Amino acid sequence: MSAIAPVKGTRDFYPNQKAFQRWMYDHIRAVSEKFGYQEYEGPFLERLELYAAKSGEELVQEQSFVFPDRGGEMIALRPELTPSLARMLATRSKSMIRPIRWWSFGPFWRYERPQKGRSREFFQWNIDLLGVDSPQADAEIVVVAAAFFKAIGLTAKDVRIKVNNRRLADQQLDKLGVPPERHQQVFRLIDRRSKLNAKEWNTYAEEIGLDQEQIVGLEDLLNNSVAWREFDELKDFFDAVEQMGASEYVEYDPIVIRGLDYYTGNVFEAYDAVGEERAILGGGRYDDLVADIGGEPLPGVGFAMGDVVTGIVLDKCGVRPDLRANPADVFIPTFDESSRGEALRLAAELRVAGLKVEWFPEIARLPKQFKYADQQGIPLAVILGPDEIELDQVAIKDLRTGTQTTIPRSKVIERVRELLEPRNEL
Amino acid sequence: MSAIAPVKGTRDFYPNQKAFQRWMYDHIRAVSEKFGYQEYEGPFLERLELYAAKSGEELVQEQSFVFPDRGGEMIALRPELTPSLARMLATRSKSMIRPIRWWSFGPFWRYERPQKGRSREFFQWNIDLLGVDSPQADAEIVVVAAAFFKAIGLTAKDVRIKVNNRRLADQQLDKLGVPPERHQQVFRLIDRRSKLNAKEWNTYAEEIGLDQEQIVGLEDLLNNSVAWREFDELKDFFDAVEQMGASEYVEYDPIVIRGLDYYTGNVFEAYDAVGEERAILGGGRYDDLVADIGGEPLPGVGFAMGDVVTGIVLDKCGVRPDLRANPADVFIPTFDESSRGEALRLAAELRVAGLKVEWFPEIARLPKQFKYADQQGIPLAVILGPDEIELDQVAIKDLRTGTQTTIPRSKVIERVRELLEPRNEL
Repeated sequence: MSAIAPVKGTRDFYPNQKAFQRWMYDHIRAVSEKFGYQEYEGPFLERLELYAAKSGEELVQEQSFVFPDRGGEMIALRPELTPSLARMLATRSKSMIRPIRWWSFGPFWRYERPQKGRSREFFQWNIDLLGVDSPQADAEIVVVAAAFFKAIGLTAKDVRIKVNNRRLADQQLDKLGVPPERHQQVFRLIDRRSKLNAKEWNTYAEEIGLDQEQIVGLEDLLNNSVAWREFDELKDFFDAVEQMGASEYVEYDPIVIRGLDYYTGNVFEAYDAVGEERAILGGGRYDDLVADIGGEPLPGVGFAMGDVVTGIVLDKCGVRPDLRANPADVFIPTFDESSRGEALRLAAELRVAGLKVEWFPEIARLPKQFKYADQQGIPLAVILGPDEIELDQVAIKDLRTGTQTTIPRSKVIERVRELLEPRNEL
Repeated sequence: MSAIAPVKGTRDFYPNQKAFQRWMYDHIRAVSEKFGYQEYEGPFLERLELYAAKSGEELVQEQSFVFPDRGGEMIALRPELTPSLARMLATRSKSMIRPIRWWSFGPFWRYERPQKGRSREFFQWNIDLLGVDSPQADAEIVVVAAAFFKAIGLTAKDVRIKVNNRRLADQQLDKLGVPPERHQQVFRLIDRRSKLNAKEWNTYAEEIGLDQEQIVGLEDLLNNSVAWREFDELKDFFDAVEQMGASEYVEYDPIVIRGLDYYTGNVFEAYDAVGEERAILGGGRYDDLVADIGGEPLPGVGFAMGDVVTGIVLDKCGVRPDLRANPADVFIPTFDESSRGEALRLAAELRVAGLKVEWFPEIARLPKQFKYADQQGIPLAVILGPDEIELDQVAIKDLRTGTQTTIPRSKVIERVRELLEPRNEL
């Protein structure tokens, strides 16, 4: 029979791909902890109504995997984490000590057309600071993003974090005479700007009720790169970013508005600097979400970063690390049946001594076994055949150099440690 | 409004719960790597037909979350990993170097009645050795399980790994005159033994066509604890377990047979020693699965361990570690608006020096801020108020002792490192 195919848009992580993901996770963890954030995780399944409340129509109606469970209730595979975070905090919001600094890295699902940079199953880093509403809190979250980029080798020439503010945008739309109940629609129009051509953009703008004067006014707004200077919340934000040493990564951009409905203040997205249309990460301030989901009012700010686009940007900038799965320290071949038991005892002994030991699980020609060990990247082989057992010795072969020496069995741990030392110094 | 409830059988991981999960993951990783296994991950969604092939009716028909995707295809939230592993290997089986030693830790879903030890969303450690069919390979996998138990503090008095062999069971059923096509049904009967009372058991046995003589014969088999001595595959297996130093954890038990259809040789389950009915982990040899899913024939052996039951056993044995989320090294309070910028600069400077630094993101009474830092478990506070800025000094408060000293600003990194040193030695 032919192989059963995987589900479209899902990913298989073979060991070298998993090693890359672990590398990314390790950097995410290190940066998150450097700023005092604690790791948490939400469920992967949530009731659809959790998202229906605030996530925005497109995400819920068009992009979520939704199904009835056996009890008939509508369940969603989580398309984002912030509503789960809000639910978890709403449940305990009275007893939680504030500020709350939490981060997470886990899987998410969206029903999108699979293409470069998008998969239906993907991983996301989420990080949030809750319990305080200040431009400095917003700045810290953006500085965390910049610190992560720096840590993985992406410079301020490679990536830009673009910031805007929904309260500023509301003021600007008020001035254009756009009624407040239409602002959300205009935000969605702005969010689609890079996806539409001039004509489509104009048609969309007319459809949501903007007249030509308002459309021209909106164009002017989106080209005004200095509006932030008259807006205290953004001035204080950029001051704090400068104080935390991340100015080079961060700039004002009136086109950034975010598609999700729940943002209330500063919003931001990171792009690679050569102008891809898809954001590496995006986030902002959401001061009403926890109360909307049933908790005490709890202001928050945070962002989410997907793993797929980040990997593409690392490739593009030529800084993706060359990783392989972590090899063992010592390889133990299987010589013949008579010596196999002693080889297994030796392997167990070396493991007790703290070494990583891989044993070849069948009798085969030694060159074949050494070739396997070399392909795995294992530096040393310890050989215990019938002759060595007879003489109470072991042979140690350095697979990096080909050198082989014979030593007393009792010295094996000591000698292996000596031979590995230069490796550990690398 | 009242809070939106989570989906029944899902779990929220607040930071202290996530810290426990990370502790378990860290041990799983260390033990897996100690035996030379490489980390991988499969997709969370698979086509239903992948499981329909070999996983067994109960798992697929009754326990899986299944839904049609937007294209109408039937998709399952993975209830187990082995079929995905087989699919991944089937795709590349010609080019893979053997043996293949892989492990994984990730989420799974089963539609079970939520109760102690069962949740609908759970995590599983999967570990497999493929490309070789030998009792020694089976023994290695079982020794990995024993090494994990030892590492997390569960002794051979706390947990037992019980082993049986399907080829031996086939021979035994042949002798009872049970036709080969009924063996799978008898295996399912044996697998349910602990869940049924004597009468239910007898009724089930009759339903699948056993006569009274066969039922009595089967009872005898299930009480015979020495049958392994006449069966080479199990004798070699127990020899290898002894050679690898794990005999105390491992014993023969004819009642262990496993519910899944794809096992072909040795099978095993671990239980806590006071006789819980639910297995901590289970696995066995599956020599036909990769070929059945469309690849080259590739024999394999492996097991899966759930996180929920393992946690319960740790509790029961009184060895669950007392974990808290990893706190920052240094706390920086916010004194007033005039000094806030300098405090942010100081935080950034300490982070560049490699320290984990949490900053209090709003102006509040200092005792309140120190109380927060103490609750977080942060050992040191570095204070930079208007007076300190004026004098180019900082105050360092040791939150463990209450001692506060004032030092020149330029000495801060050096002094913080000194004060943290005894902590790092703990």
